[in-house]
Amino acid sequence: MKRAEIIAVGSELLLGQIVNTNAQFIAKQLSTIGISHHFQTVVGDNSLRLRNTLEVASSRCDLIILTGGLGPTKDDLTKEVVAEFLGKSLIMHQKSLDSIEAYFKRVNREMTENNKKQALVIEDSIVFENHNGMAPGMCVSYNDKQFILLPGPPKEMIPMFEQLVLPYLLSGSDQTTIVSKELKFFGIGESILETKVLDLLENQSNPTIAPLASEGEVMLRLTASAKDKEEANQLIHETEMKINERVGQYIYSTNGDNLFTVLVKLLNEKNMTIAAAESLTGGLFSKRITDIPGVSSIFKGSIVCYQNEIKANILGVSNELLDTKGAVSFECAKALAENVQKLCNSSIGVSFTGEAGPEASEQVPVGKVFIGIKIGEQEAIVKELQLSGTREQIRLSSVKHATNLLVKLLKECQDL
Amino acid sequence: MKRAEIIAVGSELLLGQIVNTNAQFIAKQLSTIGISHHFQTVVGDNSLRLRNTLEVASSRCDLIILTGGLGPTKDDLTKEVVAEFLGKSLIMHQKSLDSIEAYFKRVNREMTENNKKQALVIEDSIVFENHNGMAPGMCVSYNDKQFILLPGPPKEMIPMFEQLVLPYLLSGSDQTTIVSKELKFFGIGESILETKVLDLLENQSNPTIAPLASEGEVMLRLTASAKDKEEANQLIHETEMKINERVGQYIYSTNGDNLFTVLVKLLNEKNMTIAAAESLTGGLFSKRITDIPGVSSIFKGSIVCYQNEIKANILGVSNELLDTKGAVSFECAKALAENVQKLCNSSIGVSFTGEAGPEASEQVPVGKVFIGIKIGEQEAIVKELQLSGTREQIRLSSVKHATNLLVKLLKECQDL
Repeated sequence: MKRAEIIAVGSELLLGQIVNTNAQFIAKQLSTIGISHHFQTVVGDNSLRLRNTLEVASSRCDLIILTGGLGPTKDDLTKEVVAEFLGKSLIMHQKSLDSIEAYFKRVNREMTENNKKQALVIEDSIVFENHNGMAPGMCVSYNDKQFILLPGPPKEMIPMFEQLVLPYLLSGSDQTTIVSKELKFFGIGESILETKVLDLLENQSNPTIAPLASEGEVMLRLTASAKDKEEANQLIHETEMKINERVGQYIYSTNGDNLFTVLVKLLNEKNMTIAAAESLTGGLFSKRITDIPGVSSIFKGSIVCYQNEIKANILGVSNELLDTKGAVSFECAKALAENVQKLCNSSIGVSFTGEAGPEASEQVPVGKVFIGIKIGEQEAIVKELQLSGTREQIRLSSVKHATNLLVKLLKECQDL
Repeated sequence: MKRAEIIAVGSELLLGQIVNTNAQFIAKQLSTIGISHHFQTVVGDNSLRLRNTLEVASSRCDLIILTGGLGPTKDDLTKEVVAEFLGKSLIMHQKSLDSIEAYFKRVNREMTENNKKQALVIEDSIVFENHNGMAPGMCVSYNDKQFILLPGPPKEMIPMFEQLVLPYLLSGSDQTTIVSKELKFFGIGESILETKVLDLLENQSNPTIAPLASEGEVMLRLTASAKDKEEANQLIHETEMKINERVGQYIYSTNGDNLFTVLVKLLNEKNMTIAAAESLTGGLFSKRITDIPGVSSIFKGSIVCYQNEIKANILGVSNELLDTKGAVSFECAKALAENVQKLCNSSIGVSFTGEAGPEASEQVPVGKVFIGIKIGEQEAIVKELQLSGTREQIRLSSVKHATNLLVKLLKECQDL
């Protein structure tokens, strides 16, 4: 059983300029494949202190993963210190040098001499090519200990870890194929989901199942290792079917898409357009939809009707309705959805009205939300919610509930 | 000169369930007061490994700051391990026990026996009261080494650090007063700002000056220590004046307010209302304004006019203008600002049109943005920008440029 230590090298971490997200990423990945790790260390760009850190780490662990310090400047000294610590030399890796030279040619910039340093690797190491930057990663073994050196920028380190380091760690060579799949859930809490699949979680080995929660959603990440892609896919398929039987109704995506991307794709498929009337959400639904490039084919626009005057004058909600039922009401949500559909000439109108807090208004408790949905010629639907959390959480949850409901309705209506 | 090490205790960090933001926070604070630190370590809830970490840390540092592991459960063992390591006992801290008992009384819950454990402190230590939770922090000295133990939840640790630990570290006792002030800048890059105040940065001692960049803005945090608040304020005032002379025109806030809060307060002061027409920003301006509670007095609403059809049919931009000048044009931004002001019956109309990317459209390069502003009866102003970065950065930068411009215009026009 391997014991790992993660070492991040970089004075910017000691100054608090950046947070060590690399350690969190690698920690999660290691736990996914069953490698336990007991320590994480951060050390500055200083050769004496890095050497001290290597001594401490190799006294208590077998697998030492270092991030950072592989760049071209004098401050970057991870390779140099590890090589010296192990009594090994640095040698030029021709393939990496070629790709660095090609990079400079491509961006039409002159390659300075110090960039060659990035193509140096520790002798006898296995080299991980960098497809998103210049400095390659590497693994060198010594006295039953393994040292893995990875670049610091997350956009280089993460794909290198997923595509090259994970297969290497799982197989001891790079002959194993790793496949992972993300099952994304909405409408079920993390603890209930865990309870429903507890036996699978407890007996997992291949694929491993890692639950992750963020932004009011839960995800299960299945990761299988096998000799080829087909076998790995088959292993994942079997576990996915078991999960599907129990909690399949809460899964909205299995290909990495988020809730908003799923909705946008469905609307594109069905050649439908959408427009929104946003009161408490204040533009958040529109913002999340337009985070996705190229949505102008399906998203017409929206009316952020924060004041009742806008609900009345632009969206045609009658003052009588606003006076008798109030802006936060079933009737107002219905009228807003119907009227924004008509006003924007869209296939779908969706509306949001409610109380996001932090202070409750006279008649409405914090978290009371009505979502209106009008699709084509169908009768408008209104969903009433009682949400909890901060203002930010209530607004985000409203937007996600509506998006999830739209996805369900569009999937159900095959004839749309 | 003290050398510090930060140790975070918690298995949830090793599993990657949370990221170690405590280390970043403490790192920044230490650099602000000139204490250098060379190592950060993360260790799980395991007494043997925590002891190993203490041995390593005390062999290379004088000030050891631990976060986490002060809670009521069996897993929480930081105090116990540190006490054993130093050959000291744990004793009951009556004041902390009283406040824990008072807490349970207040929330009307029965206090279980294990909660008493949270009031235990290491003998001979200085106790830091916890005003946001139950477990107190403490500092114990031993053989010229100091061990500071702090709770893990950031909402308890951060105020305890700012209010009690910083003064303690600066004075060796708790008699010093610390005052900090944040000068927030917009429209000036971090490197130019640093160049302009380089001599101040290099010769800083009291107050210290820490530059921080995030979300396309820069902030300078001044922190002064003195025997009382008045003296600390005076020290800050002197440095602030020097900074003001050089780059004062870029400062938009000195009291912690963000750009949007500054705009909302100005509008409230002047009894003015605002409405927006958002094309490329897709609702982001409205979302950021309505992040702030209680804005319904100044924010009427907005029209997210993502498709040209909405610009024409709802906002009354002529099809001729859209055909000849295009949606991303000076003329369209002007018309949108004028028309949304009229449509929403607001004192101010602001508009956003541009190309957020990632793909350029036929005639418009990515990052080209026009912002329109119409205030009262004044002639509309249009500002053309060429922004760079990702889609997300271009959208956020557009919204911030407009907000900054609005703040400047509202401050200049005393008669509004």
